[in-house]
Order: sequence, then C-alpha cells, then structure tokens
Amino acid sequence: MKQAIVARTDLGMGRGKLAAQVAHASLSAVEDTSATVRKEWQGEGQTKVVLKGDGERTLFELADRAEREGLPHAVIRDAGRTQLDPGTVTALAVGPGEDRVVDRVTGDLSLY
Amino acid sequence: MKQAIVARTDLGMGRGKLAAQVAHASLSAVEDTSATVRKEWQGEGQTKVVLKGDGERTLFELADRAEREGLPHAVIRDAGRTQLDPGTVTALAVGPGEDRVVDRVTGDLSLY
Repeated sequence: MKQAIVARTDLGMGRGKLAAQVAHASLSAVEDTSATVRKEWQGEGQTKVVLKGDGERTLFELADRAEREGLPHAVIRDAGRTQLDPGTVTALAVGPGEDRVVDRVTGDLSLY
Repeated sequence: MKQAIVARTDLGMGRGKLAAQVAHASLSAVEDTSATVRKEWQGEGQTKVVLKGDGERTLFELADRAEREGLPHAVIRDAGRTQLDPGTVTALAVGPGEDRVVDRVTGDLSLY
C-alpha cells in the first residue's frame, strides 16, 4: 500500500514550505481513511511518494479520479500567511490505498 | 498551537524525499497526541513549521527536550529503499502543542 502526494511545481515553493504542504495533505487524507486501511498501511511502513503536479487544474482532475476510485484524498489550500496568496491550492494526497489503485490515479506523474 | 518538524540538513535529501520524511514525522507525532490537543490544533488550521537540524545528535537532543516538556514527538528513521542507508535518522516532529512550549524545544532553529 502507499500514499501519493502530488505537489504543485509552478508555485516556486521553498523546500520547507513544500514539505509542510505535503505533510498537511498526507495527514488530511489519512484522517479520511478507514481504520483498517490505515493500520495496514502503517504496518507496512506507511510508504509515501511525493510527485509533481504542474498546476491547480491537474490537482483537481486527479482528485476527481481519486474520488471515482474510492480512494481517500485531500486537496490542500494554503492559509496564505507566508509566500502564497490565501487559498492557493498547493497539494493533493491520494490514499493510502493499494498500489495498483493509487497508480490508476497518479501513475503517470514524476517523482518530486 | 503548532507542530515543529526538524529535518536534517546534512544528508543532501532531495525535495521530495525531504517532504516525505517531514510528512512521516508529522503523522507519527500526531498519532502520539491526545484527541483533545489534536482537535484543537486542527481547528486552528494545523500549523506546521519545518526547521533545520544540523545532524542526528541534534535531533536526539531535541527529542529528549520534547520528552521532558511532555510534548508528543516522533523520530523518523528512513527505511533506506532510496537515497539513504537503512535506519538513517532523517526528521523529528515536536508537537502539536502550545506555541510557547514547542518554542522551548525548537525556538532556536531556523526555518528550512
């Protein structure tokens, strides 16, 4: 099992900012995950991959696809206290879920 | 309230790797947090800051300090499937907790 987190490459986020947004997305999707799936994923070492998304539209399209696959997911908007305008979409987490199902949503993206 | 995640600067982690380790640390410390504190932090927008730690020893010292302050915390070791040797300590999450208490542990560190 794995969780994929897609972060935007077009916002010029610094490394720390990027990491915080990815963490936020990861946590939010995990909260949306059943206890059974969560425990299985955690038992396997809670694999996470961070992937590149080229813009807001891409993230929303992937979120729709995750919804159709029945995967937990979370779109993150930045509070805008630093670096970005308030409400900027920064990251999307998909899963945890079975690798092959997550790959149906994010399998075409490159590693960040 | 906030959570501080301290990531090592001396490992040459790429941006995606760094983000995944930070997310791992964040999630692990949240699992170690009482439901009351977790809900309060999430209700406030689950503020996270990512900070620079200069090496393994620093992370362990900060973890000890977090323990003494009674803050949830988690030290992350990489599984070593990519980039790093197995068991390499990569990140430490401190909190969520009250800002002033978290700052007693990580207040001297720079933003990543």
